[in-house]
Amino acid sequence: MENEKKKDTFPRIQASASSLRTSNPIREVVDRIDTSQMNKNKPMIPLSIGDPTVFGNLNACEEAIQAVVEVTKSCQANGYPKAVGMVEARSAVAQEFSTCHCPLTAADVILTSGCSHALQLCLEVLLEPGKNVLIPNPGFPLYKTICDYIGAEARSYALLPEKEWQIDLEHLRSLIDSNTKAILINNPSNPCGAVYPESHLKEILEIAQVAKLPIIADEIYHQIVFPGNESIPIASLSQVVPVLSVGGLAKRFLVPGWRLGWIIIHDRHNALAQVREGLERLSTLIMGANSLVQAALPNIMKNVSNSWHLSVLRSLHMQANYSYERLSHMVGLEPVMPQGSMYIMVGIQVTKFVDIESDIDFSQKLLNEESVFVLPGQCFGAKNYFRIVFCAPMDKLAEAYNRMSEFCTRHVRTVQ
Amino acid sequence: MENEKKKDTFPRIQASASSLRTSNPIREVVDRIDTSQMNKNKPMIPLSIGDPTVFGNLNACEEAIQAVVEVTKSCQANGYPKAVGMVEARSAVAQEFSTCHCPLTAADVILTSGCSHALQLCLEVLLEPGKNVLIPNPGFPLYKTICDYIGAEARSYALLPEKEWQIDLEHLRSLIDSNTKAILINNPSNPCGAVYPESHLKEILEIAQVAKLPIIADEIYHQIVFPGNESIPIASLSQVVPVLSVGGLAKRFLVPGWRLGWIIIHDRHNALAQVREGLERLSTLIMGANSLVQAALPNIMKNVSNSWHLSVLRSLHMQANYSYERLSHMVGLEPVMPQGSMYIMVGIQVTKFVDIESDIDFSQKLLNEESVFVLPGQCFGAKNYFRIVFCAPMDKLAEAYNRMSEFCTRHVRTVQ
Ligand SMILES: Cc1ncc(COP(=O)(O)O)c(C=O)c1O
Ligand SMILES: Cc1ncc(COP(=O)(O)O)c(C=O)c1O
Repeated sequence: MENEKKKDTFPRIQASASSLRTSNPIREVVDRIDTSQMNKNKPMIPLSIGDPTVFGNLNACEEAIQAVVEVTKSCQANGYPKAVGMVEARSAVAQEFSTCHCPLTAADVILTSGCSHALQLCLEVLLEPGKNVLIPNPGFPLYKTICDYIGAEARSYALLPEKEWQIDLEHLRSLIDSNTKAILINNPSNPCGAVYPESHLKEILEIAQVAKLPIIADEIYHQIVFPGNESIPIASLSQVVPVLSVGGLAKRFLVPGWRLGWIIIHDRHNALAQVREGLERLSTLIMGANSLVQAALPNIMKNVSNSWHLSVLRSLHMQANYSYERLSHMVGLEPVMPQGSMYIMVGIQVTKFVDIESDIDFSQKLLNEESVFVLPGQCFGAKNYFRIVFCAPMDKLAEAYNRMSEFCTRHVRTVQ
Repeated sequence: MENEKKKDTFPRIQASASSLRTSNPIREVVDRIDTSQMNKNKPMIPLSIGDPTVFGNLNACEEAIQAVVEVTKSCQANGYPKAVGMVEARSAVAQEFSTCHCPLTAADVILTSGCSHALQLCLEVLLEPGKNVLIPNPGFPLYKTICDYIGAEARSYALLPEKEWQIDLEHLRSLIDSNTKAILINNPSNPCGAVYPESHLKEILEIAQVAKLPIIADEIYHQIVFPGNESIPIASLSQVVPVLSVGGLAKRFLVPGWRLGWIIIHDRHNALAQVREGLERLSTLIMGANSLVQAALPNIMKNVSNSWHLSVLRSLHMQANYSYERLSHMVGLEPVMPQGSMYIMVGIQVTKFVDIESDIDFSQKLLNEESVFVLPGQCFGAKNYFRIVFCAPMDKLAEAYNRMSEFCTRHVRTVQ
């Protein structure tokens, strides 16, 4: 370039290794998908974005909105909260998650800028470069992104589609070595929609106890479970294993943009004293969540009724059932019925198709021909699956599945 | 402890080195101050907290509140913003800081969870363990906190009280070595209240240009300057030196709790392409600022009138003048008149006192005897100074200075 020859130009400034290795697998896979070839005659239906608010059919509860409006108007909550969060808000979380077996106080709660920030703090406090954490595969890509950033290893344990995405416990156990610092589980899960029964959670605790490892439990989808399943925070079953449970308002209250998350420190035998200190220190770096939402949190938790939550769940359940039903009738596809969350994973039997090579190929061609966007499983470490976010309203889902069905029929081998 | 002997107890879990070395000098100094001995007969007057909202005399503008209320009620901004922020909000920042010499677009702006988060991203993208950044002394403690966390060195250059806290340029130059990655400046400044004239900023740019170092400009107090001073973003003077300018709503709009900050990337000759990429990658970790405040930002910037800003400035200026006036009449104290911000630094001539050993001793005894709390200069790397936040209303300031004056008279040596 011309400029480089001028005397007064500036050399290129290098970015740090940690920043450049911070990579989001979703971005990397999605960036390889070319949206320019999309079928312009069909309006786009994005079933790709894990944001329940995009279609406008699932809206935040009026009482939650009202709580924030009141706090904002009062002009009483514009100042700095403590780095770990306002005590009233922390108390509200503590109360919500206390059981007689594991009583919690505000001191056990750290508020964060979304559950992502909670995950970042938990992984940072437990890991060092060269150490590893066990994470689910398929799994939420941010776990690996954060580990890459830290310079630690995200070591994937397998989930078993044939066992409703429960953990392959043998595999989990086999991955533990002297550098392993924690087991991360995600329940209810993204992208699988798995909800673990008590017995499975106890098996996981057993492994953690033997290996003397703490558990990071990503429970952001807590209580988003369909009838017949129970949403059990793993900490409620733990006798000795220390648990850092992370969650937030994003999904259950349908307000991901508000960026209010939390860490709940479940310490059984004072095993986490230093970790608690480390978390508190890390929380001073950016000072956590927005003060208006923090101040509104007690009223949000108190005033958003159970019936509102149930009505959201009913919608999601209907959309999940409908999605499963439609998808299981398409040739070449094998959906796994979710037990909760907002996602369904669909297996692609590539050999049944004439010209579908992989999940990425499937997503690209589906987008090109039908303007329906689904995320390839490789975003989550699951080759030849794709993930559907079933938050869209029924008419949109119907249209999307009509198109998908035609797509499959068109591409399937006629003689098998 | 009993528990440790039981068979099923859990070993203590270690926290990471990076979390444990994350330390806030304010906390460490303040923790050494014993508040239990406070004079119970006098109500506490805290002149220690850098939060303009604590006394209730400085309130956010009605238009800013209204903008957030409207966005919240609309239920249209509850979803995830992009990791780098909503384009409309980034445009609003770009427009606010564009000049014909340095035009900006939304692509040059990254929104963050407060200016603290902006600082964290900038330091993380430029530094590695073992590298160093030059920071002001006295200075805002978070710079060192973030460097400690990264494992990089925060190398302090001196500010000169006799030159209205301008940078000791010789000292600055002498600190640069092959491991130096950036020069961080803070203008207008905390804790000094310095506002640099154009000539001084040009001298700094000259040094950066010769050393081929980018500048991180912490301009969170931009435009909080008193008559006779001009608030000049250093980037507006830069021909070639790349600048990352960080700022936010916290101080100028009196809403620190809202946690909306930004990074403005001023790249002159494409020197920052990789840094921009690194920043974008880092921004995906926690997904930035609250969506309600982001969505309200264009209206906040448009609707908060200049006359509101001027009225806040008039108050601050009056409080600054009054503080300086009162403090300069106290024996043993040497205030340095601030040119902007919300802070005044006061030198303590310890030899003039009978029993004041240091700034920490001064703060402790002032608190014990008069229930007035000021931060010892050591929080900011300035021994035998203390910092006053002059945001309190005039009657509170008057009372605080009355007490402080009696305190000094009581402790001063009678024969000098
Ligand atoms: C499993 C899981 N954990 C954490 C998060 C992040 O939540 P937040 O938006 O509160 O940062 C998500 C968001 O999609 C998620 O799916
Ligand atoms: C110089 C300086 N920079 C940055 C900040 C942090 O700003 P924010 O509250 O937006 O994180 C402060 C806050 O006091 C400050 O004084």
